[in-house]
Amino acid sequence: MKRAVLAAAVFMAPLIVSADPLPSWATSDSKDQIIAFVDAVTDPHSTEYVTPAERIAVFDNDGTLWAEQPVYFQLTFAMDRLAEMAEADPSTLSTPTLKAAAQGDLNAIVEGGHNALVEVLNASHSGLSVEEFQASVAKWLGTARHPDTGLPYDQMTYQPMVELLRYLRDEGFRTYIVSGGGLHFMRVFAEDAYGIPPEQVLGTYTGTTYETADGKPTILKAPGIAFVDDKEGKPINIERTIGRRPILAGGNSDGDFAMLEWTTAGHGPRLAILVHHTDAEREWAYDRESPIGKLVDGLDKGPDLGWVIVDMAQDWDRIYTGAN
Amino acid sequence: MKRAVLAAAVFMAPLIVSADPLPSWATSDSKDQIIAFVDAVTDPHSTEYVTPAERIAVFDNDGTLWAEQPVYFQLTFAMDRLAEMAEADPSTLSTPTLKAAAQGDLNAIVEGGHNALVEVLNASHSGLSVEEFQASVAKWLGTARHPDTGLPYDQMTYQPMVELLRYLRDEGFRTYIVSGGGLHFMRVFAEDAYGIPPEQVLGTYTGTTYETADGKPTILKAPGIAFVDDKEGKPINIERTIGRRPILAGGNSDGDFAMLEWTTAGHGPRLAILVHHTDAEREWAYDRESPIGKLVDGLDKGPDLGWVIVDMAQDWDRIYTGAN
Repeated sequence: MKRAVLAAAVFMAPLIVSADPLPSWATSDSKDQIIAFVDAVTDPHSTEYVTPAERIAVFDNDGTLWAEQPVYFQLTFAMDRLAEMAEADPSTLSTPTLKAAAQGDLNAIVEGGHNALVEVLNASHSGLSVEEFQASVAKWLGTARHPDTGLPYDQMTYQPMVELLRYLRDEGFRTYIVSGGGLHFMRVFAEDAYGIPPEQVLGTYTGTTYETADGKPTILKAPGIAFVDDKEGKPINIERTIGRRPILAGGNSDGDFAMLEWTTAGHGPRLAILVHHTDAEREWAYDRESPIGKLVDGLDKGPDLGWVIVDMAQDWDRIYTGAN
Repeated sequence: MKRAVLAAAVFMAPLIVSADPLPSWATSDSKDQIIAFVDAVTDPHSTEYVTPAERIAVFDNDGTLWAEQPVYFQLTFAMDRLAEMAEADPSTLSTPTLKAAAQGDLNAIVEGGHNALVEVLNASHSGLSVEEFQASVAKWLGTARHPDTGLPYDQMTYQPMVELLRYLRDEGFRTYIVSGGGLHFMRVFAEDAYGIPPEQVLGTYTGTTYETADGKPTILKAPGIAFVDDKEGKPINIERTIGRRPILAGGNSDGDFAMLEWTTAGHGPRLAILVHHTDAEREWAYDRESPIGKLVDGLDKGPDLGWVIVDMAQDWDRIYTGAN
C-alpha cells in the first residue's frame, strides 16, 4: 500500500511540475518575467503579495489580443454593414465617402481622414438599438472572413494572450479589456473569445438615448462619438469605471502608453507588457512607421521602465487561436 | 446513537427554518415578495431560474440605501469642505454663493438653483486629484455628524437594505450602486458601508484629466459635471458600464423611475423595489411634494407594474445601521 502511494507520487510529480500555464509561449525572458510576477503577487508569504480584490489586469484589444491588419476589424465590419444596408436601401449611400466605403475602398476613407471615418461610423453604427447593432455584429462574425488568412475574425485572437488571460484568472485576477475599439462591438465576442464578460469590457462609445414607446423602453445608439478610449482616455476610463489602479497592463501601441504608465506608476509590484509585432511571416511586422498600431514611445521608454517587450516572432510558438 | 442524531435533527430543524435573511424587515408582503423572487431565480429547478452571471441587482443610494434629509449628504460635505478650505485660504470664498455655502446657508443655494449648486460643487470638488478628494471625504466622514440624529453620516445607512444587499450576494447576485450622487464621493464608503467595491459603484461624475509631472501621472478632478447619473441617465449608464440588464432594481424617487422601468421591462423574472419614506417618527415622511426624493410616478404607476412599494414605517423594524 505504502509503495503504491509512493509510486503514484513519483508518477504524478513531473506532471504537476511540468503543467505549463502558457504552453504557446516559447521559453523566453518575457515568459519568465510574467510567471515570476504572478507567482510573487499570489504568494501570501511574499512581500509582493496582492489581495485578489486588487488583482486587476487590463488589456488593449486591437493588436494586443487580436490582429489589427490590414485595418482595424471594426472598420471592415462598418464597410461590410454599409454594403448590406445599401442592398436593402440604396439611398443609404448618400455621399461619395459612404459609396466608397460600401465598395471596400479603404484608401478613400484614409484620405478623408477623421471626418470620413466618423461619417462611416455614424452611418453603420447609429440609428438602431444596441441589441439590433449587436445582432448585426454577431451575424457578421459568423460569415465574414479575413482577406489574408481566410479565418473568421474572432479566430484571429492570439492564442498566447488567450492563455495569459486564463492563467491570470486562474490566479485570482480579474481581466478587463480597455480598448480604442467600440464598446458595443467588442462585447459581442469578448466573452466567447477571451472569457471576458460584458461588465469587464471598456471601450470607445457612441452616445445612447433611452426611448420609451408603448411602455417598452429601448436604448438607441446615437450618432457621434461620446468618449474615445485611447491614450489618456484609457487611464481616465479605468479610474472612472473600475476605480482601482491595475497591477498589470498589456498593450501594443502608443495609444496604450498612458495606460501602461498609469499602471506601473502605482505603489507595489506592477507589470506592463507590450506586444511587439515582429513576425512578418506568421502575422505582420510593424511599429514606428505604421499608421495602425504605431509604436514609438513604448519602444523608446518601455525597457527603462522595466516593461516586458514581447517579441512576437521569438516569444510565441503559435499566433492565432484559429489556426497557424 | 440514532436517538441522539434524531434529537439533534429535531433541535436543529427550527433553527434552520427560522434563519431569517432579512431580520430587520417586519413580516410583510414586501419581505415575502423579495424572498419569493430570490428563491425562484436561484432554484435550478424553477422555470424562473437565472444564472449567477445575470443576477445583477442595482440600487440608488440617496434615500434608498442611506438617508437624504434635510439635504443630500454630499452637499453638506461640500459646504463643510468650503468652510475648511476658507480657514486655510479665505480667498476661496470669492462669491456670495460660496460665502453662504461655507456658512451652511442652504436657502441661499436652493434659491440660486442649478448655477449655485454647480458653483459650490466646482469649488469643493475640483482642482485636486481623485486621491486627495477621496482623502478629504474620508476625513469628513470620520468627524461630521448629522444635525438631527447626531450620527456619523455613514451610519445613517438603512439596516434593512444592508441586509438585503448581503442576502442578495449570498444568493449569487452582484450588487451595484447606480446613483445621482458623486462617483468619487460614494466609493469612499461604499465598500465598508454596503460591501460594494469601487468597480460596482456608478454615479454622477466630474470630468477628469490625466497629467504627468516628473514622470509621475495623476488623475485630476476637473470643474463641471461630465455625466448626470439620474433619470434616463441611469439605464444609459447601466447599459454602458455593466452591459447587462439588471433583474432587480431598488430606488426611492422619480429619478429612479427609468432604471426600474428598464429593469422590469426585460424578459424573464424581474423585481423592482421602491422605498417609500412614510416614517416621520424614526426617519422622515415625504414623497409627492418633496424637493428632495420627489416620488410621484413610482407611486402612480409602480403598483400596476408589480413593483414592491416598501412602507418604511410598517415594513422596517429598524431604520439606521448606526442606531435606532
